Amino acid sequence: MTETTGYSGSGFVHVKNPHLDSMEEDVLYHLDLGTKTHNLPAMFGDIKHGMGIPSISIMLHELIKLLHHAKCRDVTIIRIGTSGGLVWQQVTGVTSSGSASVSICPGIEAGSVVITDTAVDSSFRPRFEQVVLGDVVVRSTELDKELAEELLACSREIADFPTLIGHTMCTYDFYEGQGRLDGALCSFSSEKKLEYLSRAYDAGVRNIEMESSAFAALCGLCGLKAAVVCVALLDRLEGDQIRASHDVLWEYQQRPQRLIAAFIRKRLGLGPAH
Amino acid sequence: MTETTGYSGSGFVHVKNPHLDSMEEDVLYHLDLGTKTHNLPAMFGDIKHGMGIPSISIMLHELIKLLHHAKCRDVTIIRIGTSGGLVWQQVTGVTSSGSASVSICPGIEAGSVVITDTAVDSSFRPRFEQVVLGDVVVRSTELDKELAEELLACSREIADFPTLIGHTMCTYDFYEGQGRLDGALCSFSSEKKLEYLSRAYDAGVRNIEMESSAFAALCGLCGLKAAVVCVALLDRLEGDQIRASHDVLWEYQQRPQRLIAAFIRKRLGLGPAH
Repeated sequence: MTETTGYSGSGFVHVKNPHLDSMEEDVLYHLDLGTKTHNLPAMFGDIKHGMGIPSISIMLHELIKLLHHAKCRDVTIIRIGTSGGLVWQQVTGVTSSGSASVSICPGIEAGSVVITDTAVDSSFRPRFEQVVLGDVVVRSTELDKELAEELLACSREIADFPTLIGHTMCTYDFYEGQGRLDGALCSFSSEKKLEYLSRAYDAGVRNIEMESSAFAALCGLCGLKAAVVCVALLDRLEGDQIRASHDVLWEYQQRPQRLIAAFIRKRLGLGPAH
Repeated sequence: MTETTGYSGSGFVHVKNPHLDSMEEDVLYHLDLGTKTHNLPAMFGDIKHGMGIPSISIMLHELIKLLHHAKCRDVTIIRIGTSGGLVWQQVTGVTSSGSASVSICPGIEAGSVVITDTAVDSSFRPRFEQVVLGDVVVRSTELDKELAEELLACSREIADFPTLIGHTMCTYDFYEGQGRLDGALCSFSSEKKLEYLSRAYDAGVRNIEMESSAFAALCGLCGLKAAVVCVALLDRLEGDQIRASHDVLWEYQQRPQRLIAAFIRKRLGLGPAH
């Protein structure tokens, strides 16, 4: 058996220490976790969190406490995921009569990666409202500007998809809250939807998802350098439903990971991957 | 603006969205189903979702559309789950000097099952605020009273745990939003926490969770008879962390299911399970 692979066919992570199996308990002292005191397979074996601010808030509270208990330092944390895009372009042209014309048209195609500079709420304000004991507390949703620029610089090494920096709108609801026409409830017209998304675009919003504002607020308050990098699965100007094939979506979803991999290689002083 | 229910009497699940009829295909993205690719009336799905209002809203939009496409009628939908309890009791006694005394003390132990009559927000109001195109729309969070009473009647056949009807507070956050002292962030004292939870109790709140208000609002608008049945894993008067053993928690989590099983047997005309 060679030691080059760390995985057997089962996919489990192997530790190469026969003594562990005979220990009554294994305490991961620096993580304050133990195999008797904690149900580690249940805790970490299949980590999924749901969608939305409540889910990411629970996960972050506990992750931040874990980082704290483990005495981690200089932590950089990056949320990667998917989003709806507002990737329109203002095109200035000249009409046949010689006057200037400005039109909005779909600019960057679906599959673009958006690095968030600031998360905004559904009224395009850079704030996250947290209810504490029944009172509303307003928190900043700015993300680390240097980190965003560093990520954008990394993206220039990856030629096959466009990456941009912009505001990300964070909503509590996927359907009505994002102006979709295809939910179980919809009380507005297609025109009102486009008018709303157009106002979002004018306010600097380039994509829409459901976690960034709480993520930015919590990480900012706890001193973590934080970034949000999401691929836009579709252009909401063109529709509400995700129409791309499974293979295309799978490739889109790799893009934030590929960007972050390039970032990690750069931080570690390694060259580009081949 | 308050929306009241506009449920018609056909028994079919209604979606309140005129755009759906004109769509060539409706893809339930998070359920990986489509009206062209799947024979929805013949299918029955297996649904998992995360925690919180955004997760349950996505699941419900798609489930309600599924029920609609599948032409289901007279649907009863019950959310079962876990919650934190506020199961205190006011005890009136007589002091040694003969004067009356009123004290609050932990009443019903952890493991009690709460059937929700009305979901309330973190200010104890019976309402759910949905943002639609940036505007706040207020929706009713009352649940079906007859269904709640029917469930309470069923609970009398199950002697080994207490069941009660009360308000359920629904929050967007598990830690600060529920007055927990053990999150990564906490800006309030133990006294302020207890004062808040005491006010919640006085307003009729008997348990706290993170989905009921959106569930009640969406189901109400779409004409589903809905109930929320959650076990209280702990009494929040006594603490924030869940201290019961795995076995005890496992048994607690069966209680709403056992109550619903008794309800289903009754609806089907079967006798009690043995």
